[in-house]
Amino acid sequence: MTFDTSITGSTASEIEHLITWLASFGGSGEGGVTRFLYSKPWLEAQHALKEKMTDWGMEAYFDDSGNLFGRIAGTKNMSGAILTGSHIDTVTNGGRFDGAYGILASLIAVKQLRDAYGAPKTSIEVVSMCEEEGSRFPLTFWGSGNLTGLFDCGKAPAVYDRDGVSIEGAMKRCGFGKGRYRKPFRHDAKCFIELHIEQGGILEASGRQIGIVTDIVGQRRYTIILKGESNHAGTTPMNMRKDAVAMMSLCISCLMKKAKAADPFLTATVGQLEAKPNVPNVIPGEAVFSLDLRHHNETVLDQFSEDLFADFAKLSEESGVQISVQQTTDVKPVKMDPELTRLSKQSAENINVSYREMISGAGHDAQIFGRHCPTSLLFVPSRNGVSHSPEEWTKPEDLISGIKVLSNLLYTLAYE
Amino acid sequence: MTFDTSITGSTASEIEHLITWLASFGGSGEGGVTRFLYSKPWLEAQHALKEKMTDWGMEAYFDDSGNLFGRIAGTKNMSGAILTGSHIDTVTNGGRFDGAYGILASLIAVKQLRDAYGAPKTSIEVVSMCEEEGSRFPLTFWGSGNLTGLFDCGKAPAVYDRDGVSIEGAMKRCGFGKGRYRKPFRHDAKCFIELHIEQGGILEASGRQIGIVTDIVGQRRYTIILKGESNHAGTTPMNMRKDAVAMMSLCISCLMKKAKAADPFLTATVGQLEAKPNVPNVIPGEAVFSLDLRHHNETVLDQFSEDLFADFAKLSEESGVQISVQQTTDVKPVKMDPELTRLSKQSAENINVSYREMISGAGHDAQIFGRHCPTSLLFVPSRNGVSHSPEEWTKPEDLISGIKVLSNLLYTLAYE
Repeated sequence: MTFDTSITGSTASEIEHLITWLASFGGSGEGGVTRFLYSKPWLEAQHALKEKMTDWGMEAYFDDSGNLFGRIAGTKNMSGAILTGSHIDTVTNGGRFDGAYGILASLIAVKQLRDAYGAPKTSIEVVSMCEEEGSRFPLTFWGSGNLTGLFDCGKAPAVYDRDGVSIEGAMKRCGFGKGRYRKPFRHDAKCFIELHIEQGGILEASGRQIGIVTDIVGQRRYTIILKGESNHAGTTPMNMRKDAVAMMSLCISCLMKKAKAADPFLTATVGQLEAKPNVPNVIPGEAVFSLDLRHHNETVLDQFSEDLFADFAKLSEESGVQISVQQTTDVKPVKMDPELTRLSKQSAENINVSYREMISGAGHDAQIFGRHCPTSLLFVPSRNGVSHSPEEWTKPEDLISGIKVLSNLLYTLAYE
Repeated sequence: MTFDTSITGSTASEIEHLITWLASFGGSGEGGVTRFLYSKPWLEAQHALKEKMTDWGMEAYFDDSGNLFGRIAGTKNMSGAILTGSHIDTVTNGGRFDGAYGILASLIAVKQLRDAYGAPKTSIEVVSMCEEEGSRFPLTFWGSGNLTGLFDCGKAPAVYDRDGVSIEGAMKRCGFGKGRYRKPFRHDAKCFIELHIEQGGILEASGRQIGIVTDIVGQRRYTIILKGESNHAGTTPMNMRKDAVAMMSLCISCLMKKAKAADPFLTATVGQLEAKPNVPNVIPGEAVFSLDLRHHNETVLDQFSEDLFADFAKLSEESGVQISVQQTTDVKPVKMDPELTRLSKQSAENINVSYREMISGAGHDAQIFGRHCPTSLLFVPSRNGVSHSPEEWTKPEDLISGIKVLSNLLYTLAYE
């Protein structure tokens, strides 16, 4: 039995239809979607997907954190399952593709495989994970975290949404977290395959249809606090000032210069900043800014941050403005499985789809799975690199290419 | 008749007592004062001052904007009056000396002169101006502006406080603005003398007791808007970014370097800034910052701003981030009257008080009067240069020196 490259030939309208359908749960009416963990549209979406899975002949079930699975049981290797899918939640007024595409593409691919070849040798489960974005609660990867043992929905952390609702309370109101469903931890995961939109412009710029991710970057986040002296803007000569905003500008300019000269895969972002008291006619006595540093090599991050903070200390000494650096996040880089990467490339070649290897600068469920079982992350292009916006869009032919590659890869893994 | 330098010898407890008394109107209980224009504590303070003026034998009256006067009629030059005083309003939780000291010092000086020498040849009026700070309404110099024709309380502009109360409504609730009192405009002002705390650290640093202001700086204020492209912090390579915060930092660093290398009297302040969307993991697509430029020479301001904005334009071209510069304030520099400056120096020498000429980097009522009639602005030191704070403080001996110099100057102007 060999893979028939024609089986995914007629799915353009199907995937587009399904994307539109799923976006109607939490749809903003202008193309955007807001579907927070354990919200009403979230619960409706998961239940609608469960029904779809059942209609399509899958064994559909929830785990106790609210992750949803559609299983096609294997005929031979009974002890484990191949997981494929992505997350169902969105950011505020996010796009229709982020997360949703990975779930729907997996559904189509698995259904087509089953229709064409019958039951696989190894069980395949399409997974619609409950949460990845961290939009409602100050916590990310609740879905993949529960699947891999990073979290335990039976011992939910004390985090609250903007309305003061705890994650535990919200979960229970949806019927989960009460032991009514199976425990989420999956010791039986043979591997995890995630298909996702790129959320960046690299594929589009390089004209390739598929990105095969080799590494997901590590991410360090810092809060940098500067303390100078607040003073009158008109009566304090320039040489008597300890201006926290002037110092912040020197730090950021220094950072950007260094980052541009560093390894081209390194990214450095100051996304958030604040000056105090923040009025035009007072020299700011205090300033705070965020720093987000990413690279797939821990050593590069170590070296860059060490050099940078030495430069900051020098600037602090020269300016008389005190600096304090607090690290708030330290996510380690994760490698995708080399054998799955090889098979993914082979799949793209099998069905004649252009591809490139790449680094993912964004976090994905695949980075949580990557420490738990062999994992592969595949990208399709995002128009203008845009995501987390109603403008998020991927060409239908690229959506199809993603499904084809996924199908072929699943065929290799589950049928051969 | 000559001036007796001993007459002001015993006023240390008097001025301290009066400062404490006036600070009780709107006092925060921790040494700070909040006395907004046309507020309850403001009205009580003006009425209490009126009573004090009457008690001290002055002819006390309001004008229709709420400026208060205490007049000692002259015996010879009937056509005009020497005005001396300052403003009664404060910033939020401001100090006890800013404005208040100038009014109370004038009261004491004028009373002592009258007690020692009887009626002056030229009328003297102590003025407690209703407003200077712009703390309640988005408008400054309402008091001196009404006196000099810059404003007309009969045609109040449509400005509102944070609670939506119009300046006209607030004024009328206090009994003003209804034509019940004389019109504020003073065509009869022979000169204006303002004694004020420095609100800066120059006198303290130079160890002098009196600052004789020769110029009040001009002030230009700008809002600078930067538009780049908002993007994902992890997936957008450094060389594909149009980062508005990186550009803002370059602009501010460039500004500060230029300002430090420029004329030492020039000040440049970025007190207020904002990034959008202002979250750590998104490249800011927009940034806005304020720029406050001051110098006492218009040509210096012209040259500096022209050079600066040319540099900004160059940075914009290099970074691909669009820049737009909007000027929001253009206050011209004002020269104090040279003859009054000469007489003020003479007064300081007469009574053996150390002094220096200086530029005022802060705005004062004297800058409004400076375009209307001969004006002099005198400073006493502020501890640590601090003002607009409950920490605001001036040594009693410096308060006395100020009163002595003012007395001597008023003697020269009104009695000789």
